[in-house]
Amino acid sequence: MFTSYVHTVLKRCDELALISQSPEYIDRRYLTNEHKFANRLVASWMEQANMQTWQDEAGNQWGCYKSPVENAQTLIIGSHLDTVPNSGQYDGILGVLLPLSLIQWFADKSITLPFNVEIVGFADEEGTRFGTTLLGSRAVAGTWQDRWASLSDKQGLTVATAMRDFGLNINNIHNAGRDKNSILGFVEVHIEQGPVLESQNLPVGIVSGIAGAKRFSIEIVGHAGHAGTVPMALRQDAIAGAAEIILAIEQAAIEHDVVATVGQINSLTNAVNVISGKVDISLDVRSLDNSKRDLCIEQIKQKTQQIAQLRGLHVNETLTHDADATLCHPSIMSQLELACEINAIKPFVLSSGAGHDAMAMAELCPTGMLFVRCAKGISHHPAESVNFEDVNATMLVLKSYVQQLAKQYGENSELVA
Amino acid sequence: MFTSYVHTVLKRCDELALISQSPEYIDRRYLTNEHKFANRLVASWMEQANMQTWQDEAGNQWGCYKSPVENAQTLIIGSHLDTVPNSGQYDGILGVLLPLSLIQWFADKSITLPFNVEIVGFADEEGTRFGTTLLGSRAVAGTWQDRWASLSDKQGLTVATAMRDFGLNINNIHNAGRDKNSILGFVEVHIEQGPVLESQNLPVGIVSGIAGAKRFSIEIVGHAGHAGTVPMALRQDAIAGAAEIILAIEQAAIEHDVVATVGQINSLTNAVNVISGKVDISLDVRSLDNSKRDLCIEQIKQKTQQIAQLRGLHVNETLTHDADATLCHPSIMSQLELACEINAIKPFVLSSGAGHDAMAMAELCPTGMLFVRCAKGISHHPAESVNFEDVNATMLVLKSYVQQLAKQYGENSELVA
Repeated sequence: MFTSYVHTVLKRCDELALISQSPEYIDRRYLTNEHKFANRLVASWMEQANMQTWQDEAGNQWGCYKSPVENAQTLIIGSHLDTVPNSGQYDGILGVLLPLSLIQWFADKSITLPFNVEIVGFADEEGTRFGTTLLGSRAVAGTWQDRWASLSDKQGLTVATAMRDFGLNINNIHNAGRDKNSILGFVEVHIEQGPVLESQNLPVGIVSGIAGAKRFSIEIVGHAGHAGTVPMALRQDAIAGAAEIILAIEQAAIEHDVVATVGQINSLTNAVNVISGKVDISLDVRSLDNSKRDLCIEQIKQKTQQIAQLRGLHVNETLTHDADATLCHPSIMSQLELACEINAIKPFVLSSGAGHDAMAMAELCPTGMLFVRCAKGISHHPAESVNFEDVNATMLVLKSYVQQLAKQYGENSELVA
Repeated sequence: MFTSYVHTVLKRCDELALISQSPEYIDRRYLTNEHKFANRLVASWMEQANMQTWQDEAGNQWGCYKSPVENAQTLIIGSHLDTVPNSGQYDGILGVLLPLSLIQWFADKSITLPFNVEIVGFADEEGTRFGTTLLGSRAVAGTWQDRWASLSDKQGLTVATAMRDFGLNINNIHNAGRDKNSILGFVEVHIEQGPVLESQNLPVGIVSGIAGAKRFSIEIVGHAGHAGTVPMALRQDAIAGAAEIILAIEQAAIEHDVVATVGQINSLTNAVNVISGKVDISLDVRSLDNSKRDLCIEQIKQKTQQIAQLRGLHVNETLTHDADATLCHPSIMSQLELACEINAIKPFVLSSGAGHDAMAMAELCPTGMLFVRCAKGISHHPAESVNFEDVNATMLVLKSYVQQLAKQYGENSELVA
């Protein structure tokens, strides 16, 4: 049904991928010329779909598919247009271009709705340039913090200066904030960035929430020594200690049904013939259930101290990041489940371990998310990939969601949630 | 008995430590000006002890305490004068200056011997400058290889050029080789570089041999993924796999009574929020018993493949270094044991996990070693430390060894071994 529309989505993802700070890979960061070009290109596509377009004071790109109903409320659908360096072409982008093509379909069919639909391309979800994520959606949610004006990039340029160079005025940033009374809700489509839908053989899934994460830096101090001269029984080997701690972390995550990752490991001496005296590892623990996560961390801390004591090591953990979970709104979730059923797709609910603009928007309005299956769960990498059928299925689910909402809205013009 | 001589040894170790390429730490490499200054200073001390001195064609410093017996054979005692960067002041050095002071004592007492005693300060044991160890002692042992002439340092200077600048001629290098018929044996005194003597509460130990080492580079390939989005059960985490392999290596070493060390670990992505897709670790396995070592390696390889299979990882091992064990000569060992007993020191035999000039010299003549206790087993570090009493005890043992050998030699003027 959506064949040509899906082709357009995928072709436009290819086109946007060409707008990059690097000639070799995709790299499109906040408040760069490439950010500006991408907004203009997306705005031109919005205009083709009969949408009114504007760029807000944070640099987010908007298009509004106006309802003929006067003073109608607004459903916002979107995701982000910025990327990490050496990114794929779907993370964020697909969540802007897929609903945009759905609006094109509505426009082509002359279908009107009892509420406005606004498509948003958020300007800075990844946080690659200034080291703080969700700048675009936080401005919209009204949670922008004035101290962010002085965050600076690697060249020492602040957000305030970069905004001025981009053509924005940081003094007007709070004008990007939206009035919550006018907003029905926010729905975000995003590639899953994980392998769950693929393992379930499903094109699309309904997100229950975004996991809260705690991160630690763990320092493991032993005693350096000569690889040939210190008997095994007399060693205080920081790498061997780290190895035992890493397996204890893995075991604790499995037992508590959370995810825990040691992604970084650095040995101080790191020489083939030296027993390591000091190792630093990172720990990232996530769950939709903050208490499960914290119980897991408690177990990790206890196990770590036991291991350290038995091996004559000293271990110090430092908390480096702490964010609680964000839950999706139950009524949007059940509407998305219905939309799946309408299209004969098994409604499958999964949580998000990655952060999304929906986290910021949940502070403004009821929020929901759809995940699209992506090949092998790969994201933030040129190998990122989605297939035609899955994009088509997701567009069908989103269409049904909007139409069901319109039907329900006709019956009850209160807030959607 | 040796009080003032031991003080001299320790004072001279302090003095030699001042001859360094760096103003901040000890660094004295092969064929540098500092090498030349160190040789000259040591030669001046040798001359004070009535020794004839010369520098050989490889840059080794020699002193000969001549026997009044005509055409006497020669016992060589010594170690090396070069250091690693940021070294301690005893590794190698003590093994030159301790026997030198013993000769001073013989000279002061007008004690003559039925064989010559030569003290040698080898020029390049550490191999820090040209990446190949034992250059000095190999020239003496007659195992110098001509291809070493073109080895180059970090500045691109070859051994041949550096020798010329130093005042040596590489074309004469083979003249440094000694006639094995004239040599009674070689004895090396060295700090233990390990914690065994300390744990045994002994000042000095008799070395049974120098362990053979095999080294591998092990590549562990998994699948990178987002730390938040991939459930534990679907991960192919290279860091977690490496952790399990490191513990299996440790266990195999304990079971086979060898030492095995993972000293290097590098994760390719090494980011806090990314499941690692590739990790490289180093493996160093040593034993005085080559077959024990190889059985341990076999077990490690089998365990590693099992772990890889269960975790969906690929593992490749590459052999990067292979040296068999060197055994000390049984008759020198038993003479050193007797020398300990004479001084009421429990004769304690231990193996060396580190390489020494004795490895090269064992190809020329019967070879033995004494290890001196060092604080906490620390070496190759400014914290390297020996105590007065242990140096005194070692000098007593060495004196008894030389005197017993002289007595035995009087009875039987064949080769010592």
